[in-house]
Amino acid sequence: MTDLLIRDLAQVATPAGAAGPLRGPGLRGVVVIEDAYILCRDGRVESVGRMGELTSDLAGGIQEIDGRGLCAIPGLVDCHTHACFAGDRVNEFSLRAGGASYEELHAAGGGILSTVRATRAAEEEELTRITVRHRGWMRAHGTTTFEGKSGYGLDRDTELSQLRAVRAAGGVPTWLGAHTVPPEFDGADAYVDFLLAEVLPQAATIAEAADVFLERGSFDAAQSRRYLRACAEAGLALRLHGDQFTESGAIELAVELEARSVDHLEATGLEGVAILAASDVTGVLLPASALFLGRPMPPARALADAGGLIALATDFNPGSAFCDSLPFVLSLACTQLHLAPEEALVAATANAAHVLDRSGSIGRLRAGFAADIVLLEAPDWRHVAYHLAGDVVHTVIEGGAVVFRRTAYSV
Amino acid sequence: MTDLLIRDLAQVATPAGAAGPLRGPGLRGVVVIEDAYILCRDGRVESVGRMGELTSDLAGGIQEIDGRGLCAIPGLVDCHTHACFAGDRVNEFSLRAGGASYEELHAAGGGILSTVRATRAAEEEELTRITVRHRGWMRAHGTTTFEGKSGYGLDRDTELSQLRAVRAAGGVPTWLGAHTVPPEFDGADAYVDFLLAEVLPQAATIAEAADVFLERGSFDAAQSRRYLRACAEAGLALRLHGDQFTESGAIELAVELEARSVDHLEATGLEGVAILAASDVTGVLLPASALFLGRPMPPARALADAGGLIALATDFNPGSAFCDSLPFVLSLACTQLHLAPEEALVAATANAAHVLDRSGSIGRLRAGFAADIVLLEAPDWRHVAYHLAGDVVHTVIEGGAVVFRRTAYSV
Repeated sequence: MTDLLIRDLAQVATPAGAAGPLRGPGLRGVVVIEDAYILCRDGRVESVGRMGELTSDLAGGIQEIDGRGLCAIPGLVDCHTHACFAGDRVNEFSLRAGGASYEELHAAGGGILSTVRATRAAEEEELTRITVRHRGWMRAHGTTTFEGKSGYGLDRDTELSQLRAVRAAGGVPTWLGAHTVPPEFDGADAYVDFLLAEVLPQAATIAEAADVFLERGSFDAAQSRRYLRACAEAGLALRLHGDQFTESGAIELAVELEARSVDHLEATGLEGVAILAASDVTGVLLPASALFLGRPMPPARALADAGGLIALATDFNPGSAFCDSLPFVLSLACTQLHLAPEEALVAATANAAHVLDRSGSIGRLRAGFAADIVLLEAPDWRHVAYHLAGDVVHTVIEGGAVVFRRTAYSV
Repeated sequence: MTDLLIRDLAQVATPAGAAGPLRGPGLRGVVVIEDAYILCRDGRVESVGRMGELTSDLAGGIQEIDGRGLCAIPGLVDCHTHACFAGDRVNEFSLRAGGASYEELHAAGGGILSTVRATRAAEEEELTRITVRHRGWMRAHGTTTFEGKSGYGLDRDTELSQLRAVRAAGGVPTWLGAHTVPPEFDGADAYVDFLLAEVLPQAATIAEAADVFLERGSFDAAQSRRYLRACAEAGLALRLHGDQFTESGAIELAVELEARSVDHLEATGLEGVAILAASDVTGVLLPASALFLGRPMPPARALADAGGLIALATDFNPGSAFCDSLPFVLSLACTQLHLAPEEALVAATANAAHVLDRSGSIGRLRAGFAADIVLLEAPDWRHVAYHLAGDVVHTVIEGGAVVFRRTAYSV
């Protein structure tokens, strides 16, 4: 593996601290180094500092990148995606633009089940190919680590195929068997019985975490508790989709089960904010989903001010957030969630890494961490949030290797 | 000039009709041709149709583009930008994310005047270079025609330099002398006196239209009327920034003066909607600006339902909408303004062309129109709105020549 030196960077911006998530006043802890370099060896960051501190006795054959006019941030971490799916939902999108609600479309047999039909019809090889293509989209926006959920199979074989496809595409697989109840089951209890008896044993060998959609019309708190407890016993970390449309007890359950995260929170009220903020469960905010569905934004500012742990993610999926861009999510964080750019960056790097139990190895530009680096074509790193829907990502490096480079605009 | 054949396109989507804007039920008038071709000669569209109708006696030496897996829409028309500016406002963006309002920042000497200082300090050559770079950003998102306003000079030389820079970068220049009152003038009346006596005579030889910021604290209706009437007498078409923060009579004045457009409308109430809808003045909606500032969205659905003329634009500028992507504006139109994808496309092509008095030559894929074409990498043209902040623009063609092509994601 070639060593890599990125020199003469306008800025390097990275979350403060040695490892772990940042919260409370620390959430604004971004260290900015101007006129900087990053030296990488064997796929890891060896040192970061000011150009004046760069030692001159570098080994020969090192690859150099000219960082003039560029800023570096850590590779972005997308800790909540449904990136493994077949088909699209552009018809549903068009209907909703014309006035139909998400729940109406779901009740009408659209919604998740239409993606389930398309995903079940795809071979595992095709699911892998699609997920790899989606990883390419995410990389072009600076994402170097992504989580990917199952949940569009809802049968044994397709759920396992999804998990393997996510892993094959380099993602972190989360088993979301309890996404919705498929039509061949008579109610959520019977479906949970099936999931735990027939799918969990193998899912637990592929996935790192389990997730459930705790929502009116999907899985209630008791069903979610039963599912998650069994998953925890099988060795999986726990996550929950909660409070997307209604407060149905997801935060209380997440705290009770010491889940890693509860995600969405668009419907969370002040009491839920207080309970979550007092816990070590991360609230994962998905503002692109709220925007896509025309829903209220989650109470990110209140949660951060109360000292809660927060992370940001895209929720990339074909129905409620056809969006693979974390820079765009950072823009929404600053304009809709009232987070400062520093808070948004921390939430999509160090804190998102914490949700994936990787905060000691990714999410910071720091000696010993993975050489996952995004170079921004901008005079100030905050352009990653400021340039709304802009093409600010210039080069993406994973494990010390360049995996994406934006070429000139004109041919 | 080489002739061009784009063949085997999944879809061609274009506004219905021969020329002019679409309104009322006609606003949804998008014609979609599947398995299609577009033939261009001498920079213009010669014919569009189904592959089966393509005659085989094409001249030799024609350039071919393989359209498999791609959809074609007309080059997008951005009819409201402030693309000629120096510097940025990322500090202001960060402060606003922390809670300061636009008007507070403006009153504190930030806001427009900080960009005025930077723009005045730049030579005309630099302003041209910057505007050309911004045109590159816009092209990468499918914009083939853009309007660009002055208004960051507020003195004679810089205003004229801005107008020439926009024209040199291929844009349609609009004189926005009455953007805000610069600090060296004692009030708006004295500044309008100066503009009309010292700047208008030359501005009218470069610009196609004049624009004014009619708003509390900027120019009132009487001052705006005096400025616009003089501009009309000098041969300029008329446009207004109106109802962005308060209803201050912009719609009534636009109708009285038969302006081409009144732009923003975030504060417009039902009465204003009714007056505007009954007129031939186009309401230009700028949802990226509303999002960027965290302001209410304009009443687009009500205006469209009442039969009003609408167009969509980015409002690209460094302070209130650092956004050069019309596809993103189409996404906002569908998710925030409750417009169908067809209505959004018409608003950003044929109707935007009408605002620029070009609806007989651009904004449609039709024989005789300019060969300004966007190829989307998607199975359905509506992905241009559905793929939120996505990189769906594959190739951009202006006057029959490829000016942008997105390359592979990974190196």
